[in-house]
Formats: sequence, C-alpha cells, structure tokens
Amino acid sequence: MNIASKIESGSLVQKAVQAIRAHIRDHELKVGDPMPSEGSFANELGVSRAVMREAFGALAALNVIEVANGRRARVGAINGTVMGASLDHAVATHQISVAEVWDVRRTVETRIVALAAERRSEEEAERIIGLAKAMRNAANSMAEITRIDIEFHETIAKAARNGLFNQIVRSFAPLMEVAVPKAWETRATVEQRDAIINRHEAIAMAIKNRDSIGASSAMELHFDTSVGELLESE
Amino acid sequence: MNIASKIESGSLVQKAVQAIRAHIRDHELKVGDPMPSEGSFANELGVSRAVMREAFGALAALNVIEVANGRRARVGAINGTVMGASLDHAVATHQISVAEVWDVRRTVETRIVALAAERRSEEEAERIIGLAKAMRNAANSMAEITRIDIEFHETIAKAARNGLFNQIVRSFAPLMEVAVPKAWETRATVEQRDAIINRHEAIAMAIKNRDSIGASSAMELHFDTSVGELLESE
Repeated sequence: MNIASKIESGSLVQKAVQAIRAHIRDHELKVGDPMPSEGSFANELGVSRAVMREAFGALAALNVIEVANGRRARVGAINGTVMGASLDHAVATHQISVAEVWDVRRTVETRIVALAAERRSEEEAERIIGLAKAMRNAANSMAEITRIDIEFHETIAKAARNGLFNQIVRSFAPLMEVAVPKAWETRATVEQRDAIINRHEAIAMAIKNRDSIGASSAMELHFDTSVGELLESE
Repeated sequence: MNIASKIESGSLVQKAVQAIRAHIRDHELKVGDPMPSEGSFANELGVSRAVMREAFGALAALNVIEVANGRRARVGAINGTVMGASLDHAVATHQISVAEVWDVRRTVETRIVALAAERRSEEEAERIIGLAKAMRNAANSMAEITRIDIEFHETIAKAARNGLFNQIVRSFAPLMEVAVPKAWETRATVEQRDAIINRHEAIAMAIKNRDSIGASSAMELHFDTSVGELLESE
C-alpha cells in the first residue's frame, strides 16, 4: 500500500469509528446491547471489511464495544482499565509523576469519602470496617496488605455512588500495587504501622457514623502522613 | 477462523500488547522515541504480522503509541482524548450522569485553581485574565463563549503544572461543548450573564494575586451558581 492510500485508509477508519459511535448514541444503546456486524457497517458505509475490522479493534481497545470471540460485538462497560492503561503509560514514560497522581488521589478521595459517608448502605459500612480490621490481621503479608488497601479504597469509591469517581479510583490500582508495598517498607516499626492502620479505622468509623466532614478530614490526614514522606524520598 | 483459533489469537494479541508495553518500560522510552517495527516484534515473539498489527492498533487507540502513515511508530503522548472518549461513551450510554461528571469537575477544578494560583507564570496570569475579559466581549456569540470558557479552564489546568489534572480537565471538553451553551440558555438576562462573567473574573484575579484560598472559593461558587441549577432542571 502506498502512502497516499494509507492516509486515505487511516481517515476511513476514523470515519468508521465515528459512525459506530454515532450508531450507539442515535439508537440510545445500553451496555450489553448487541451491535450490528462488521459486515453490515461495511455495507452501509461503503468501506472494506479491513477498515471496519480496524475500527472495531480501536473501539474494543477503548472498551466502547466488547468483542467476544465467536459472538456478536456488544456495547462495552467502562471499568477504569482504559484510564488505568493511559495513566500507567504516562507514568512509565515520565509524562506524569507519581507525586502528581497522589495529589489527584488525595483530592478525589477526600471528596469520595464524604459522599460515601452520606450514601453508603449498612452492608457497605460493615464491609469497609471489616477491611480495616483485616488490614491489622494481615500486617505481616505485604501482598495481602496491598490487596486489602486497594479493596478498601475501591469499596469506599463504590459506596460514593458516582461512576466517574469510581472509574478514576479503579484506574489507580496498577500504581497502588507498586506504591503500597513501598509505603509500608518506609515504616518498619510496629508503632508506625499501627498508626497507618488506625487511620484506616478512623476513616471506616466516620463512614459508619455518616460523618462526612470527619471522613474527609481522616482521609486527608491519611494522605498527609502515609504518602507524603514516601514521595519526598523519591 | 474457527472459535478455538480465534480465542487463541485473542490471547496472542494481549500477549503482544503486554510485550510492547514492557518494551517501552524496560527501555525507558520517552514520548516520540521510535518503536521497533511490527515485523521485528513479530519475529521476536514468534507471532504473525496480523497479530502484531492488531496489537499496534489497540495501543494506538490508547495513545500508547502513535502510528503515522508511512513512518515508524513512536511512543505516544497523552492528551486527554483517551479518557475523553471513554467518558463520552459512558455518558452517552448512561453509565455516568452529567451531574456525576460535574461533581468530579467541581472537586478537581477547586484544587486545580489553588495550584494554579501558586504556580502560574506572569504570562499565564495575564492570559487567564484576558480570557475572562474576552468572555464579556463575546457575550452574544454562543460558539465563541463556549470556546473561551473551555480555554479558560484548560489554561488554568496547564498553569497548575500537574499532568494528570490537566488530562482530566481536557477530557471534559466534549461534554463542555454541549453543556456550556445549555447553561447559558438558562440565563437569558444581561444581569444573569454578567454574574457568570464576574465569577470568571474573580477566579482570574485570585490567580493573578496568588490567592489560592480565594481562587478555590471563587471556583466553588462558580460551580454552585452556574451549573447547579442547570443540572437540577435536567
């Protein structure tokens, strides 16, 4: 393929992407609804199957559609992985620093925890308290602590009942898997580790008590004490 | 292709995607650095060119690489479009409501404006003031007001010197293009429109005066008065 026809096919893929997105919007499709086949889009738009295949691939990468093998493509659900992949790449290539991510985390989690205190169900409140307790019991397994810490923040984000906040917090998971063990290594004594676990318990209790202001303050203190030092030492 | 071989090729694409991302990380590549060719990855991984082509396509959709026609692929720069596409899809399919997006906007922009007040250059401060003034002069052209309003918020985000906050704000642009004209329509009188423009000027002046607390308060008021009513009426 020469360059001119490649450019032409590039813009055709973009047009195909726009047509598919317009189809979802115009037909008010919901997550899980079946999409027309690549072939039917190709006929309608007058483009090749190869162009449609590329367009479907690009939209699948963005979770706009879900392409399962041997089945019709469906409208995709967002789950934080797209933003997570973008963020992970940006940090790996030094377009964004870990300290910048942590400023965003502190900002959004301080608001999220206030919403969670207002909106959480009884079940969610108990679950969050349970995770804080589990953290105390897991104090000798770094892998376990990391898993619980990520789940603690994700459970709070779900209880806040805001899909975008939830997606943002989930996008932090790949970074948390690296940063949480590092943060724990910097505090080796029992007293230091107790202090971190106490903060998590304070957050959990404020959510249980529907104390949104107390929950926000506890979360801000958590970020100041547990992460600030780590990032300064980088 | 039968289903079994399709599943096999699907997981091969995922492995290829992981290998390309590992290559960027392990070689500490920066934005704009050239990537090995599809063919060289295919040889190294022992997969077909078709599999590598799909993997390159998926990573190009995520802006992890930039594939220009007739040139070697390069490491991609993030610019908010990936998160923007994901957000746009989530709102179109009612996975996230506009009110939820606005809560996130208020939360992040209140922090961003405080950082901008601390970190802005003189040139940025003048530019932000200039945009607030331009808004007053454009009061009769909705398209112009929308453009200026988006640029106002994006310029503040740049001045905050945090790549992730910047990316988040840029991802709101597609929604702003719909929401800003709607917000202006709900306030038809000269007095109502003046009030909105005054808020923008108050934000700009606080940034100029390096008053981060005042800037945050002005931004919160801006969100309360200019958007709250709109969303309630939806």
